[in-house]
Amino acid sequence: MSDPAKIVTACILVIGNEILSGRTRDSNIQYLATELGKLGVRVMEARVIPDVEATVVATLNEVRARFDYVFTTGGIGPTHDDITADCIAKAFGVGISEHPEAVERMTKHYGDPALFTPARRRMARVPHGGVLVDNPVSVAPGFQMENVFTFAGIPKVAEAMFQSMKHRLVGGVPVVSRTVRTNLPEGIIAEPLGALQKRYEDVDIGSYPAFRNGKPSVSLVLRGTDDARLATAAVELMETIRGMNGEAEEFVT
Amino acid sequence: MSDPAKIVTACILVIGNEILSGRTRDSNIQYLATELGKLGVRVMEARVIPDVEATVVATLNEVRARFDYVFTTGGIGPTHDDITADCIAKAFGVGISEHPEAVERMTKHYGDPALFTPARRRMARVPHGGVLVDNPVSVAPGFQMENVFTFAGIPKVAEAMFQSMKHRLVGGVPVVSRTVRTNLPEGIIAEPLGALQKRYEDVDIGSYPAFRNGKPSVSLVLRGTDDARLATAAVELMETIRGMNGEAEEFVT
Repeated sequence: MSDPAKIVTACILVIGNEILSGRTRDSNIQYLATELGKLGVRVMEARVIPDVEATVVATLNEVRARFDYVFTTGGIGPTHDDITADCIAKAFGVGISEHPEAVERMTKHYGDPALFTPARRRMARVPHGGVLVDNPVSVAPGFQMENVFTFAGIPKVAEAMFQSMKHRLVGGVPVVSRTVRTNLPEGIIAEPLGALQKRYEDVDIGSYPAFRNGKPSVSLVLRGTDDARLATAAVELMETIRGMNGEAEEFVT
Repeated sequence: MSDPAKIVTACILVIGNEILSGRTRDSNIQYLATELGKLGVRVMEARVIPDVEATVVATLNEVRARFDYVFTTGGIGPTHDDITADCIAKAFGVGISEHPEAVERMTKHYGDPALFTPARRRMARVPHGGVLVDNPVSVAPGFQMENVFTFAGIPKVAEAMFQSMKHRLVGGVPVVSRTVRTNLPEGIIAEPLGALQKRYEDVDIGSYPAFRNGKPSVSLVLRGTDDARLATAAVELMETIRGMNGEAEEFVT
């Protein structure tokens, strides 16, 4: 179900000191942004915040009011620094306790009751009103509170949780993109590129320089909801570049 | 110069649609967080925001008031989607024009005046009052406005810009860390780990599960400003784990 006229927005909240200290390089933002884009949900902001209750609660309440969807990653494991579930309960002003279905799944998974430790039982705690998000990797579930989805931080688990719940999302029109690569530097193509952007107001044109095989290269990315428009703009762009004696080819991902 | 009693904070602002669309995986947060940590500057938040003027201006004004330092990456190239410099001028309520020193450096760099195109001249524009940040890679400078430092988005350039200006920062006490790795799962060590955290309130203990060589492994990271305390806590932690028949070793990065 989607409303073609509506732009559906999302914010990603990465909760974890290990990203802010530089110990770990986040990959959940890129994964979720890519997957959400396919569903017509546009990530408009991503924030990395520390495992500090006041910060998590305040940030969560700010972004869940501003965006259609919020996705959190991190902080739902069994150790003392896993405070996300409690913070979400506090942000929503509800209690938190063991979810019977979560307990049942984890009891079955661990088998021996001695292995289902009190620490692991903490992972069965869900804010009241929360709906479980399946965890096909390591069982302990994530959960949904209204428009907020809470995932684990480990990429493999976060990705599996997203795949298991994505049918619940109501997206808008998916954004598609076309990429033209050229050997002309940005400083040479900037003017005709800006003119093209003015003629195609419904297309978002981005310019991303990089080094490829040791040589400078620029990726010109056209993004929008109407692929036919993107195709027309891409052809026009390649003709312009070739008219300036540059190389241009469409790069298909 | 540093004041050992003060906690110096920073926010990283990543400006760019290409990160929010999932096209590009950011690496500047990890690099800057690691380098700032060495200088005793703690990154307390990182945000990824789109190339939208109102968003950049509002976010910048919020975070420059809240944190000691702000570092922005992205949006200072020569193309139409490079709007960061103008947004910063607007946020500070000042004008923007060509900086004579920037023009001089770029004139020298490009040599042939035909190559110093109007688009490239845009990269010499600096908000009034801005102090240049050197760019040893591709010449076009970044700049500093009070506590806000503006870098390019390309990692190689952002990293060189940071190295060229880091002597301007006044940090606090550097945070150091020690890492203990174990084969015991989080759900088994969570209780003694939480007890250790309570005994070492001045040490920030984080627990990060991962897969190493196909086997589950947990990194227990002790962070703080007093390395002797970290060493004592690490020894205590390893003894606890070995007392539970687990493997424990300090991992030196």
